[in-house]
Amino acid sequence: MTPDTKTVKSEMTRTAIIGAALDLACEQGLEAISLQVVADRIGLSKSGVFSRVGSREALQKVVIEEYGRQFLAEVFVPAMQAPKGLPRLKAIVERWLVRMREVEVQKGCLYTAGAFELDDRDGELRDFLLQQVAAWRSTLRRTVLQAVEAGHLRADTDPEQLVGELSNMAIGLLHDARFLRDPRAAERAQATWQRLLRSYQA
Amino acid sequence: MTPDTKTVKSEMTRTAIIGAALDLACEQGLEAISLQVVADRIGLSKSGVFSRVGSREALQKVVIEEYGRQFLAEVFVPAMQAPKGLPRLKAIVERWLVRMREVEVQKGCLYTAGAFELDDRDGELRDFLLQQVAAWRSTLRRTVLQAVEAGHLRADTDPEQLVGELSNMAIGLLHDARFLRDPRAAERAQATWQRLLRSYQA
Repeated sequence: MTPDTKTVKSEMTRTAIIGAALDLACEQGLEAISLQVVADRIGLSKSGVFSRVGSREALQKVVIEEYGRQFLAEVFVPAMQAPKGLPRLKAIVERWLVRMREVEVQKGCLYTAGAFELDDRDGELRDFLLQQVAAWRSTLRRTVLQAVEAGHLRADTDPEQLVGELSNMAIGLLHDARFLRDPRAAERAQATWQRLLRSYQA
Repeated sequence: MTPDTKTVKSEMTRTAIIGAALDLACEQGLEAISLQVVADRIGLSKSGVFSRVGSREALQKVVIEEYGRQFLAEVFVPAMQAPKGLPRLKAIVERWLVRMREVEVQKGCLYTAGAFELDDRDGELRDFLLQQVAAWRSTLRRTVLQAVEAGHLRADTDPEQLVGELSNMAIGLLHDARFLRDPRAAERAQATWQRLLRSYQA
């Protein structure tokens, strides 16, 4: 084996570890992540997992980062092709709703499940997740602000309020689709977004 | 001790058990309820707890019922004094927001935390919680429908949509106040409610 294929193989193993830990966290929560359970799921030894990702705490953080990376790659990055202002905000929200319907309604959203799991705890893991969620809200807020500045949204729009309502829409969709198993939940989220647009559009 | 004081004492013990189990569930989730932990918290033996409430599963259900009873007593029952239609809907939502600010932002909402805890599980506990949440949504829907019939809300109001958006508002407030610890979360929920009223009022 040349060093190159060794590196590739090691990278693939690391990817498999993170994927298994992410699935576990989506199913059972961030606190359910354990090096042993992840090792069992992909047929490695616990020390093999440790040598590639470090401690349980390090793996929990990597999982949160990986989830955020996938989310941004699917929702935000392609939307950057749309012109600044309302077209970009629409592109983001529409991709977000698609991702929710196609991925998160089935697998769960790590950010939201994590928020309700860790809301009354303190510590590094909570702080780390909070930073990621706050960064996403701040990205959305900037996009809303650009839409206000471009005259696409009403001048009296409070960006924090609109971002909060978009977040409520997403969290509520998870609740209604995953817990209530209401087949009309996605349709209602779409209607909520259309009503928000009518309220805030200039 | 006369039989009467015996009954009173036994009822007080049962109340203490349920209160301790409810606190535990709000802090750590419904699955965290254990007869032993509850017994330790109030200085009883595990068999003493069992003799009063039965199995762990029975205690979990009693806790869900007790939470619902307190919620209805604070939010719904007093609002029934208001005339049918929009005045009653307003009374419900305003009391709901007060209870959220004063109780649930601090202690958590068992229905919402339970929903995100149990959303990808199956079983009796999930079904039981689902019934309670569905009953509350159906109560709200009936109130919205009465407001439409009275001509207080627009004739084209979809009661399911408005109820869903009220639910999103409540769940989002918990997320933003408890996880993000955003001091403006309650103010935003109030603004969301005012905007919903403006959208749906006839």
